[in-house]
Amino acid sequence: MLLSIIYVIAITAEAMTGALAAGRRQMDLFGVIIIACVTALGGGTIRDVVLGHYPLSWVEHPKYLVYTVAAAILTIILAPIMHYLRKPFLVLDALGLVAFTLIGCAVALEMNHSFSIAVISGMITGVFGGVLRDVLCNEIPLVFRKELYAVVSLLTGIAYVSLLSFDFHADTAILSCLIGGFLLRLCAIHFGWEMPKFVYRDPNTPDEH
Amino acid sequence: MLLSIIYVIAITAEAMTGALAAGRRQMDLFGVIIIACVTALGGGTIRDVVLGHYPLSWVEHPKYLVYTVAAAILTIILAPIMHYLRKPFLVLDALGLVAFTLIGCAVALEMNHSFSIAVISGMITGVFGGVLRDVLCNEIPLVFRKELYAVVSLLTGIAYVSLLSFDFHADTAILSCLIGGFLLRLCAIHFGWEMPKFVYRDPNTPDEH
Amino acid sequence: MLLSIIYVIAITAEAMTGALAAGRRQMDLFGVIIIACVTALGGGTIRDVVLGHYPLSWVEHPKYLVYTVAAAILTIILAPIMHYLRKPFLVLDALGLVAFTLIGCAVALEMNHSFSIAVISGMITGVFGGVLRDVLCNEIPLVFRKELYAVVSLLTGIAYVSLLSFDFHADTAILSCLIGGFLLRLCAIHFGWEMPKFVYRDPNTPDEH
Repeated sequence: MLLSIIYVIAITAEAMTGALAAGRRQMDLFGVIIIACVTALGGGTIRDVVLGHYPLSWVEHPKYLVYTVAAAILTIILAPIMHYLRKPFLVLDALGLVAFTLIGCAVALEMNHSFSIAVISGMITGVFGGVLRDVLCNEIPLVFRKELYAVVSLLTGIAYVSLLSFDFHADTAILSCLIGGFLLRLCAIHFGWEMPKFVYRDPNTPDEH
Repeated sequence: MLLSIIYVIAITAEAMTGALAAGRRQMDLFGVIIIACVTALGGGTIRDVVLGHYPLSWVEHPKYLVYTVAAAILTIILAPIMHYLRKPFLVLDALGLVAFTLIGCAVALEMNHSFSIAVISGMITGVFGGVLRDVLCNEIPLVFRKELYAVVSLLTGIAYVSLLSFDFHADTAILSCLIGGFLLRLCAIHFGWEMPKFVYRDPNTPDEH
Repeated sequence: MLLSIIYVIAITAEAMTGALAAGRRQMDLFGVIIIACVTALGGGTIRDVVLGHYPLSWVEHPKYLVYTVAAAILTIILAPIMHYLRKPFLVLDALGLVAFTLIGCAVALEMNHSFSIAVISGMITGVFGGVLRDVLCNEIPLVFRKELYAVVSLLTGIAYVSLLSFDFHADTAILSCLIGGFLLRLCAIHFGWEMPKFVYRDPNTPDEH
């Protein structure tokens, strides 16, 4: 199935973003591999735990772990030429975001959850791997600050469950959302589309409890 | 039921603390909303995952997500006058802490867990939303450093399960603990009550593995 | 059973590393206790949640919480002389790492998971308590940067499941892996063995999404 091929591309791309982030913080080989696995599989793990969807996908199919470890090692080998690969890499990452989102939606729908929970499930799958990566690297998560990323995931999920609710065939819905979400993300990168920022400063603000 | 009205007030207040914290770090609209949701619903989510209590409350009742998103947007709108709302805001937050704690205890007791686990469950519900908020904002959690907060949650939980164990009626126990915990928290804020700090400094300390 | 005695030593040692880390950030008494509990019991909690292994060990046996709280308070009392205890402390911590790993493997195998998942389960149990501690203390996790630690857990887990797969008796496998992993960790500390680091720097790198 198309989606499962794209899923493998997605976890590979996400694992590489994790490995690069780890390399920027000079982690050791092992840290690089763990950050890569958490980035690639963390979103799906949080989704499965939140939905009570056991066994987790990588527990059932440990080969996904092998892919992410391989991607991490490949990243270390390719590090000297990674900056030449910037464009194809962003394209793979955009594909990954959209594929993760659709898979997350599909998992929730299979469990008979409502459309709203399916959209949330898609977004958790698409976005929270990167959130965990940034937390482990001691950074404020990028997806909360940079150009449209989580919003692409949200809109893709909404489009997907909407198409399904209008009785479109699952394959049609997946393919059109995959292409639509992918193009939206590429446009966001190309044109630098951003969400408005909320800047709040006040020394006398309520305590943040 | 009283507790469920207060619960809605509580998640709203918690969502607002999350939105303000996100605004201080200049997150975008989407980051603000996610931090608000995690702050308001994260404590209950960790509790449910730890106890294996499925489906999670916000998965079963997605309307809670709507409240937190609305609270986040409201916070952005009210931002220019938030510093005038400092006092009512701290009062709502105190109410929320105590309500979350009692709900957390009640969930564990319904699952037939022991009194000690019920108290822990209450504390996780009351405190860990704020812990997740601070972790995502790249801060050392405030509740580990500031005036009595987690301790209010702990004492409220202990009082609640103790009253129940002496066969007091559930409503009596809830109401008296709600008022007692609330007043304790307000006193802690007003008088600046703090736990003693543990300050440890030694260059030759054991490695922190 | 030997392993359960060592388990208690292990959570005590891990709780002490957590309490010291909290003391370095001048947390209050309550923060110290929570960090100690998360450090000691967090690895096993993540493992149980990931495997769907309910009830969690500390929910079933709240006495483990009592041990960690006691260890946290003991650390505060012993703080002035902790630097004299550096060596015994590192020895206990090494023992704890290996014991946690073997317990994590055993839990996964009891649930009929594959050998690869058992090894991962052992590593999560051994390492992720310390990862959570460092995340809550707003640090990049030490285990991703310092001398052999997670690798000791990995090799111990691999040795254990290998011995079992060659039909060695469980007690023989546990005892030999306990001793082997323990000595490996002590050697890593003594000789400063490290994994190679992956250092990646490039201003034009792909975005870390």
